[in-house]
Amino acid sequence: MASRTPSTPLIILAPDSFKESLTAQQVCVAMQAGLEQEFPDARYVHVPMADGGEGTVQSLVDATGGTVRRARVTGPLGGAVEAVFGILGDGETAVIEMAAASGLELVPTADRDIRCATTYGTGELISVCLDQGARRLVLGLGGSATNDGGAGMAQALGAQLLDRSGRPLPLGGAALANLARIDVSGLDPRLRDCAIEVASDVTNPLTGPTGASAVYGPQKGATPADVTELDAALEHYADIVRRDLGRSVGQVPGAGAAGGLGAGLLAFTPARISSGIDIVIRLTGLVDHVAGADLVLTGEGRMDGQTRFGKTPFGVASVARATGTPVIGIAGSVGEGVEELAEYFDAIIPVIGRVAPLSEVLAEAASNVERTCANVGRLIALTITDR
Amino acid sequence: MASRTPSTPLIILAPDSFKESLTAQQVCVAMQAGLEQEFPDARYVHVPMADGGEGTVQSLVDATGGTVRRARVTGPLGGAVEAVFGILGDGETAVIEMAAASGLELVPTADRDIRCATTYGTGELISVCLDQGARRLVLGLGGSATNDGGAGMAQALGAQLLDRSGRPLPLGGAALANLARIDVSGLDPRLRDCAIEVASDVTNPLTGPTGASAVYGPQKGATPADVTELDAALEHYADIVRRDLGRSVGQVPGAGAAGGLGAGLLAFTPARISSGIDIVIRLTGLVDHVAGADLVLTGEGRMDGQTRFGKTPFGVASVARATGTPVIGIAGSVGEGVEELAEYFDAIIPVIGRVAPLSEVLAEAASNVERTCANVGRLIALTITDR
Repeated sequence: MASRTPSTPLIILAPDSFKESLTAQQVCVAMQAGLEQEFPDARYVHVPMADGGEGTVQSLVDATGGTVRRARVTGPLGGAVEAVFGILGDGETAVIEMAAASGLELVPTADRDIRCATTYGTGELISVCLDQGARRLVLGLGGSATNDGGAGMAQALGAQLLDRSGRPLPLGGAALANLARIDVSGLDPRLRDCAIEVASDVTNPLTGPTGASAVYGPQKGATPADVTELDAALEHYADIVRRDLGRSVGQVPGAGAAGGLGAGLLAFTPARISSGIDIVIRLTGLVDHVAGADLVLTGEGRMDGQTRFGKTPFGVASVARATGTPVIGIAGSVGEGVEELAEYFDAIIPVIGRVAPLSEVLAEAASNVERTCANVGRLIALTITDR
Repeated sequence: MASRTPSTPLIILAPDSFKESLTAQQVCVAMQAGLEQEFPDARYVHVPMADGGEGTVQSLVDATGGTVRRARVTGPLGGAVEAVFGILGDGETAVIEMAAASGLELVPTADRDIRCATTYGTGELISVCLDQGARRLVLGLGGSATNDGGAGMAQALGAQLLDRSGRPLPLGGAALANLARIDVSGLDPRLRDCAIEVASDVTNPLTGPTGASAVYGPQKGATPADVTELDAALEHYADIVRRDLGRSVGQVPGAGAAGGLGAGLLAFTPARISSGIDIVIRLTGLVDHVAGADLVLTGEGRMDGQTRFGKTPFGVASVARATGTPVIGIAGSVGEGVEELAEYFDAIIPVIGRVAPLSEVLAEAASNVERTCANVGRLIALTITDR
């Protein structure tokens, strides 16, 4: 194996965003600015990454030369919200973060109402994407305000959820207790021809002690009584889905993601649930980029023991490892368990430089990434020589 | 030049202490623990460093296999304090930090009295060192509570500072206004045969607008009136020194260090004032260590633009640069102007890993240094290879 530095090394920059400070694309720019000080002649390829969570739309748009678009849809509690989504560079893949339409952050804490919160706006967003020619949909779950099993999403797309009197159910998870019948004759027919990939790292089933209501309900404001009521309502919903649609979705891993939106997508659409980072790796063509590369940099705002579980840097490192390419993690900060990552990375370097309030640290993230990558470049170029 | 890693590289670990968290020796241990993960067969030499400031006694004792000792002496305001000093491994070099006997940190803020504070205890410490066989003294200035021109130090060593009535002056800088005559007939004769090296990076003269009273008086509690009074008293003191001792010391760079203790040492002893880091480099034999080394690590609790001005990492880097040895700075944190150091170091890496209160960051310093050095080792070993 040659040990000299190639004259024009190929360096892949594939970080996630740094939450609350830099988009993944901005991280790429700062990484290159630092590395260029040591390797001015290297070729740099920016592959902004994400794991299906916050920032996935922006990263995939940046990675593929797509566009960020906006649509006015129904918010979690019925008011209008302006939600962003992405159309990727191929012009036919749309990317939605469900939290953009139905997210917990859209609801002030005092107003939270998990019994009534709906995914109706997410269904509207899907419809908008279909209107704009999307033939493939990527849906990032996570950050939801809802616990409606995706019922609202289905209603927005034309499914009828009816009570014993044949009247449409009101929106929200609690109302599902009164579900008597589902009529999908009005369901948007375009869904059948659309490939829908659901990005979820949550493997919870729809109901039960590890289900959506019990595990994620409390952080959305559910009382113990709410959890019992909502879990029973979702159980009933799953029963009716099985009877009327012929699909058993309640126990599929990920059915309980985003308040059961996973289950709703499985019930009403041809969706498949996958790991978010795996979907992003595929959409960005990361494997092809890395295959010919001499070095890969990845990273995220925080790297710690949890990074092994579906986070971007771990996914990127796995791709790099598979091709024997050196891979370095650049982290906003490192936390407990980061030492457990040592075997997967050639090095993990936090960029924080000083004791300071979080707001200041976030504000100087770009210059910290640049400084750190400059030093990383110099250390890589350094060789301990015999004398 | 060979580009392979030598099988048993020689690595010199020459950091300063990390203030309020690790002694320089402890930093060495943590650095080695990290580097050993990549270079288990390297030879590591610990050269705990200092720059004449806080930690100099401990570092030089650790670097030379000496001992830390204690003596009960007079504090800055007259009460007794227990002061540490060091006897180095050669058994005849003593190291004193004046602040151990006469430092500002020994005086609660409410009790500060710059007009009366004395270096008497520093003189006593010098005497104790001579009693214990010291033939060479290293005196670190800095951190003083005093503004007495070293008069107290001289009095403790047997000089008589007399008023017009032939009575000894009381202790403190303000009393020097009444100095009529100096009698050194009782001065400890052992001082003549002792090499005294004064470590000071302060180049201020004794008096005037850049003198001890004007520049450093306020931070020791001097009012504007105090500054005027003390500056005049020191000016008068310098006049009497010149007349009775035949030495013009007031304008020597460093005369104004430690409230004029620099001037007092020049007046009453055969002292020479030098840069602290230069003294430490000599006493630790750093140049010989580095000459045969493959890599040098240095560092300090903080590295920034000020590091160029007499701080340990800069001194160590200068030695390394002179022999063409790679040198890396490991910093507790980095601050403004750190980029100005880039040309002197192969890399400067802060060890802080996360946003946290200072107390927590200080408490985890050792593990942060180890983690950082492990990653530095891995990056050095990494080579971007052609494919």
